[in-house]
Amino acid sequence: MKILHHPQLADIHLCSVLQALSDPIRLQIVQDIAARGEQPCNNFNVPVAKSTMTHHIRTLREAGVVQVRVQGTQHIVALRTEDLQARFPELLPVILKSSAE
Amino acid sequence: MKILHHPQLADIHLCSVLQALSDPIRLQIVQDIAARGEQPCNNFNVPVAKSTMTHHIRTLREAGVVQVRVQGTQHIVALRTEDLQARFPELLPVILKSSAE
Repeated sequence: MKILHHPQLADIHLCSVLQALSDPIRLQIVQDIAARGEQPCNNFNVPVAKSTMTHHIRTLREAGVVQVRVQGTQHIVALRTEDLQARFPELLPVILKSSAE
Repeated sequence: MKILHHPQLADIHLCSVLQALSDPIRLQIVQDIAARGEQPCNNFNVPVAKSTMTHHIRTLREAGVVQVRVQGTQHIVALRTEDLQARFPELLPVILKSSAE
């Protein structure tokens, strides 16, 4: 099974997190997980092709914003809420609040 | 005199602000203004060429993060703290705090 790399806490960098969240589709994915909990990749209601979705999920994972685990044939995507809160207190809640306005 | 475009409050978009702040040099410029107040373009202590600096300041201005005014031969750069606070409450303070860690 392919091992998916996730950065350790200390290797989560602010610029990468901001970059990952600076795209409207990725922001929508993150909002969706925040609202409904972890989701399979193909469950997000965003108007993009599968390959584009794969790219967005990878960007979020490599930035340390989401955790992806393989379950059978599915990739389940969860927010790294606690890690982000530990690394950058209040950053994710404030960005989510800003994006909802 | 060249008129510099600044987006109106309602035209400041979260994704553009996050994109503008997702670069380490631009983040450093913003931190510098937050700490020392408005500054001429050439006063920032960042290791970039003048043309690169011009690009960074333009990116910040077009995203609505900074206000640039021409004073003689100088471009004075200020943070749009109140506008950002009105549009996305707590976003800039939280990002500045995160970047200082």
